[in-house]
Order: sequence, then structure tokens, then C-alpha cells
Amino acid sequence: MTTTHPSPLTTDLLRALKPHQVLTRLSERLNYRYDAIQFGVTPLAVVLPESTADVVVAVKAAKAAGVPIIGRGAASGLSGGVTPLQESLVVSFTRMTGLRIFPERREAVAQPGVVTLRVSEAAKPHGLTYPPDPASFRTSTIGGNLGENAGGPMCFKYGVTGDYVKALEFVDTDGDIHRLTRDCYDLAGLLIGSEGTLGLMTEATLRLIAPPKFTRTLMCHFAEVGQAAEAVSSAIAAGAVPSKLEFMDTACTNAIEDYLHLGLPREAGAVLLVDTDGDDPAMVDAELELVAQACEAAGGTVKRAATPAEADALWQARRSISPALGRIRPQRMNEDIVVPRSALPDVVREIRALGDASPFHLVQFGHIGDGNLHPNIMFDPRTEDEAAVHDLAHQIALVAIRHGGVLSGEHGIGTMKRDFMRDAVDPVTLSALWDVKRALDPAERLNPGKILPEMLMVDR
Amino acid sequence: MTTTHPSPLTTDLLRALKPHQVLTRLSERLNYRYDAIQFGVTPLAVVLPESTADVVVAVKAAKAAGVPIIGRGAASGLSGGVTPLQESLVVSFTRMTGLRIFPERREAVAQPGVVTLRVSEAAKPHGLTYPPDPASFRTSTIGGNLGENAGGPMCFKYGVTGDYVKALEFVDTDGDIHRLTRDCYDLAGLLIGSEGTLGLMTEATLRLIAPPKFTRTLMCHFAEVGQAAEAVSSAIAAGAVPSKLEFMDTACTNAIEDYLHLGLPREAGAVLLVDTDGDDPAMVDAELELVAQACEAAGGTVKRAATPAEADALWQARRSISPALGRIRPQRMNEDIVVPRSALPDVVREIRALGDASPFHLVQFGHIGDGNLHPNIMFDPRTEDEAAVHDLAHQIALVAIRHGGVLSGEHGIGTMKRDFMRDAVDPVTLSALWDVKRALDPAERLNPGKILPEMLMVDR
Repeated sequence: MTTTHPSPLTTDLLRALKPHQVLTRLSERLNYRYDAIQFGVTPLAVVLPESTADVVVAVKAAKAAGVPIIGRGAASGLSGGVTPLQESLVVSFTRMTGLRIFPERREAVAQPGVVTLRVSEAAKPHGLTYPPDPASFRTSTIGGNLGENAGGPMCFKYGVTGDYVKALEFVDTDGDIHRLTRDCYDLAGLLIGSEGTLGLMTEATLRLIAPPKFTRTLMCHFAEVGQAAEAVSSAIAAGAVPSKLEFMDTACTNAIEDYLHLGLPREAGAVLLVDTDGDDPAMVDAELELVAQACEAAGGTVKRAATPAEADALWQARRSISPALGRIRPQRMNEDIVVPRSALPDVVREIRALGDASPFHLVQFGHIGDGNLHPNIMFDPRTEDEAAVHDLAHQIALVAIRHGGVLSGEHGIGTMKRDFMRDAVDPVTLSALWDVKRALDPAERLNPGKILPEMLMVDR
Repeated sequence: MTTTHPSPLTTDLLRALKPHQVLTRLSERLNYRYDAIQFGVTPLAVVLPESTADVVVAVKAAKAAGVPIIGRGAASGLSGGVTPLQESLVVSFTRMTGLRIFPERREAVAQPGVVTLRVSEAAKPHGLTYPPDPASFRTSTIGGNLGENAGGPMCFKYGVTGDYVKALEFVDTDGDIHRLTRDCYDLAGLLIGSEGTLGLMTEATLRLIAPPKFTRTLMCHFAEVGQAAEAVSSAIAAGAVPSKLEFMDTACTNAIEDYLHLGLPREAGAVLLVDTDGDDPAMVDAELELVAQACEAAGGTVKRAATPAEADALWQARRSISPALGRIRPQRMNEDIVVPRSALPDVVREIRALGDASPFHLVQFGHIGDGNLHPNIMFDPRTEDEAAVHDLAHQIALVAIRHGGVLSGEHGIGTMKRDFMRDAVDPVTLSALWDVKRALDPAERLNPGKILPEMLMVDR
């Protein structure tokens, strides 16, 4: 095993923390250079804090050594949010797994290393649940969800991570601890979604809700994407608020069918998967019927799940997208644009045309209820040109912006979409975002190189 | 009429705006020195913008003249948020009343001068509504609601103003226009609730919802406040999420009874008013019964409204609090603390004791569902000592902080609770809030003297 020479940084850390909390061997550090999609620079050292006090130690040691610091959860992120861009100290929160449930207050108090699903599991015996459900919720952590303000299929009806945060503790760039509620200047709201560039979040008080008692499911396929978007718009206009509303394009459906042979309609231009939920089964049925009628009026073919097992079978298609795509190429770039629902048909068509004109395999799926689309570009980094992949991702981002959309619904900007921020945000607003960043991290030591592109100073 | 001599400021303004948009006469300017509760300094001039471009003109003129600038809606605020503390330019948004409803997107796009209730009125023909309902919603404006992140009785179930903002336009301290969505750094969320100290909000895209089809109402009186708090906690623990959950103490009930002779129980220690709502009348009834059972189990006497007219009669008590209190003394200081529900019995008792030990008439009411309490101190500024009123308000704030509460639920900090911020916020967090303030308003020209108390510089 290769070991590094003790540096002032690791000496400081080893003096204040237990030996197993500081990883210095190359073989260990190598594991902390990537997220689910991007590789970065191998960190100088990795700290495994067990308390907020340990985080303070790490931040102060990094400050003394003049080294950048990067917080990291399960690293299941899809935008390069936790990949180091230079030699850094990585703080891996996976051992800060403290979780308390307060049923009478309908709150959970969670440390950042708590796995997302664990919150709902711990709340369940009390008749409560935690709705935000990113696809990775079996591995992702609350800290990572806070950093990216993660969403999921439920977010159209139930909201994203930040909507459930009642209080937040964070450690700032100097190692000072802050405990925030959501009043006056909403500093907590600013930290949420900031990808560790403004502070390290060390504890969150999360709102829990009573889960709906009943769920109904349908699948619908359409000849053409525009019909699916039309069906969704008219169902929502008629008063339906589905708890999940997922879309897959032809390429996506075929990738799943190649993988699992579920009998999905390969020729369909679009497949919708819809859940309605609530406490009154008649109301939940009625809401599903609203959606079914809108789907049929738009020319779709509806298949209702008669039992929970049938519903589970329908959802298997959606859950299998990632492994199905993994069989096509070893790597993928996962876009996360959000566009007005009314623009979806044009946006899906334009992105399809970009994919067809490129040498890459491209599929589209996403949370169509709030216009959150995930065009995925599959590629093999050994044989295909990553610069061309990035260029195609940029073209897709420009389609979204041209239609009044934004770059990210739930994955964050990270490094992947950092350059696209110049297209999405006016220079004067980018300058204001930099002003806020520098106010809270003047030395730019917190996760440098993420979210905000460098800018020519705007003369104010 | 006294007129001021033309200053460089008014000359600049009159050059770029129409004459009726610039108020310079003393008699006109005097009207812009107060909100619903506090008096301030008479402004140097008042601008009545009709567009974002007019706001830019005003901000740039104030910057050139080195004069502070204060945005103002209906001035129905209760914390001194819009009262000038020095000679300033006031921007009154009452003519920026543009409002468009987009039913298919379930959105309203509102300029800041739109009266709150007007949004729901305009949305109603499309089967939609805008839930935030501050008590002043017949006069308050969206701009003011954004500035204070206003709530109301519905906010326990439906959330506060900021929860409905999808996009925001604001003019910064230099007169640059920013258009924000709620992604990456949530600068919009930071502006909301900042009381005009970080920028002037000029347009908001608001989320609309389908209103619930049915509402049921009950009133319950208890011998003792603790019973009411216990009833509320056990009803919520049993799964009820009432749409309104209002509390009045003995002093408050008696003030209303003196005023209107409604037959309210004068001897009751606490009166609760509860609405449940939803689309299924059986479910709404069942939810009300959950609350009724919890009330009776806690020793309360329940009165259900059998008709909408009876419900309206029950709610008349709550709606009459302000005029009823106005008869006791000409002026009042309206606190807005939020405490954990479990702490409510102790908090209400301790505040009652403070009131009884003071020379002032004190009543308590509030949104008990989320622990938002409004202790009101009535006084006559001609004969009673305002410093003693302020001191009592401070003692009340300290009770809230001691029980893990915060200073403001929906009224903001303004000038009234600015000094109390030293008790509520750690010096290091106050310093971080100042860093954010200075990042967006380095010359401290936007609504100076609000929210953040001056501080000794913390050595970081």
C-alpha cells in the first residue's frame, strides 16, 4: 500500500480525531474522487466525522492548511457535485447517521449521513413518512439530498427536499457552527441546493407527513409525444394532482424492453406511468379516471393496474431504466432540464432530432408533471469523444433555455452544467450569486469550481 | 401646501417619470411615514412606479443622490417594516397592479401592488385559488406579503407566501433587474422575507391550487389553555390536518364579547376555532370529528357549525379581534412568536403572568396549529410609556426563545423586533446574515435599520 508522507493537514487531523477517522492511504483516497457520473482529482485526505465537532476540526484543519474542503454523502449524485477538481480534503458524512423521530411534532432530526429511505422506515411505525424520493433513495443520503435539493417522482405533488426542512445546522468556512430556522433571511434555504459551496450541513430537522392510505396506478401509451403532454396538461387542468407522473420516450421504452422483455409497446412514441393517491379510495379512483379520460381523449391506450402487484409490475419498467441504459454503453450523461409543460412536445422533438443527428444513443424520460425531463446520452469513454458528449449536452441545455426552461430540476449544476450557467443566468445575476458565494466563503475554499462559472468582473 | 425645494433627487425623478408619479409635497409625503403600527421619518420624496423600468429609475436616482430607498405596499404590516428611519426615497408599489392568470399552468403572474385577495378572485373563474391569507388580505399587497413572507390561518395546512413563489423578478441596489427561478442558489428565497433590505421585488410568478370543495367548522371552549394545546396536539397526532386552527385566550374572548355580545363563554381559559377542508364531504366530516373527539377528551365543550351561515357566525369572533382591541386602547404592539406546540401551555401562562404584572392590557390569540402566537399589548401613547411597552414585548420574546421558539411567524422583524434578534440569533450567525446583506447591498441603501441589529464586528 502506498502511503503519503504526513502533511501538516493530516498531522492536524490525526491529533484531533481518532485514527480510523482519517484516511490517508492512496488506495483509500482513490475511492473518494468520483460521484455516480464523473471522476475528479484524488483527495489529499478523507475525514469520516462522527459529530458536528469533528466537522469543525476538519474545516479548521483545511483552513489552516489552505486546502479546499468538499462534503460528500453517498456520492450517488449525477452532476459531479462532489468530485474534487483540485487536491482537497474530503469530508465523508457516511458515519454521521444519527436519526431521531418526534411523532408528536411530526419531525425527524437527521444527521447528513442518514440514507434517505431510512427516514421513512424509521417514521413508518409512527404512521408517518418522508416524501422526497430521489431515484437513488436506497443509497443517497440526507446530506447529499440537501446539497442538491433533490426531488423525485413524488415531487410534483409533494415538493422537493427543501420543502421539508424546518431547521438546519451547518458549519461555515471558518469552522463556526450555525443553527438556522426558516425565518427572516432564509439562510437555510440558501444553503439547500448550494452543493457544499456555502457551508457543510451537519443536521436537519425534517417535516414528516401522514402517508396517503391508497394508491392507484395506470400506464398509457401514445403514438406521439405531443399526445402524452396534451393528456397530462388536460388531466391537471381538470383537477387531477397525480402523486407520480412519469414519461418515457420510444428509445427509453425499447432499451427497457431489450433488457427485461416486459411486453412494453415498442412502437409507442411515449409511455406515461401515473399514480394517484389519497385517503379515500373512491376519490383516488376518481382522480385516476380523470387522468385515464384525458389520456384516451388525447389518443392514448390506457392500462389500469387492478392490484398492487399489477401496479408494481407496471412500475418495474420505470425502475429498470438505469440498468437498462447501463447495458447500452458503460457511461452516460444524465440531463435534468425543466421546461413548461406546454413546451414539452416541441422540446422532446427537438432533443430527439439532436440525438438522431449525433453519433450517440439518446433516450428521454422524466417527471412530466412538472416538466422535468432527463435526456440521457450514452457513451463509451474508451472509444467515444467526451467533448462531443458535452457539446450535445450543451445543445440540449440550450433547447431548454430557449423554451423558457432551466438547467436542473433535482440533480444540481455541479461541474457538468457549470459552463451552461452562462447561457441560463444573466451576467448581472451571476455576479449577484458570486457576491453571495464570496460573502459566505471569501477564500473560495468550499467545494471550489462547482455551480458558478468563473466570470469577467461585471463593472457595477 | 408646503413644497420642498427641488433637490437633485426630485429633479432626476421628474426628468424620467411622469409628474403624477413623483410626490414631493409635505402633505403627500407625510402619508408614507408609517405602517399599521409604527411611525417613522417623513420621506424626502415618494415614487409611484407603473413598471419595473420606473423602479429602476427610482433606484438609480436614489443611488446617485446617496439616499436610502424603501419599497412599500399597502403598509398594513405590523412590525415597522416599511417605516423610514431616516430621510429616504419611498417607492410605493400601489400602481403596479398587473395580474395575469395562466389556468393551464396553474400560475398567476403578479406585480407587487396587486392586493392579495385579488389573486384568488381572479383565479376563481378558472377553479383555482391562492391560499396565503394574512388577516389584512383585503388590503395587503403581494409585494408586502413577499417582503414579510406573510402567512395566515391557512398556513398550517397550506404554507406561507414563499411556498407559492415559482419565479421572482427584483431590482437590486444598483438598479439592475434580475429574473430568478427557484434553482441552484435560491436567491429568490433569500429575497422573500427580507423586508426590502436586499432588493425590490417587482414581479412574482405564483402557484395556484384547486380550492377544497368542502369546509366544516367547530368552536370549542376549555377551562384552561393547557387543555386546548393538548387537544390540538392529540388531534394532529391522530392524523387531522385542519385547514385553520385558531386560539383566543380569556382576555381576547372578553374583548370581543364586550364589543359584539356574541354569547362567547367569558369564563373560558381558551377558545379554539377549527376548520377542516377537502374534496370529499365524508372525509372532511371525519377529520372534524377527530378534532372534536380530541377536544372533548381534553375536557373541552364543542359546538359544531351545521351550516355555512353558522360557521360564518363562529368565525365572526376571530375576524373581530382587531376592531375589538382597538376599542380598549388606541395603539397596540402585536407580537408574532412561534413556539413548539408542546410548549404552548407554559408559554401562554408565562406571558399571561407578564401581562398581569404589567400596567398594560394584554391579550393572546394566534394560529395554534403551528404554535404561532400573537400576544398583543394595548396602550395609549399619549398617557402610557412606550419604552415600558417595548420592554414587555422584549420579555415576551425572551419567553419564546427560552422555550425553543422564534421571534416571527408571519409579521417579520422590521424595527419592532430588531433589537430582540441579538437574543434570538448567535453572534456568528448574525455576522453571516450581515455578510449576505452587504454582499447584495454594500452601501446599505436598501431599507436601512430593519431586521439586523448593528453588531460589534466579530473577529472571524
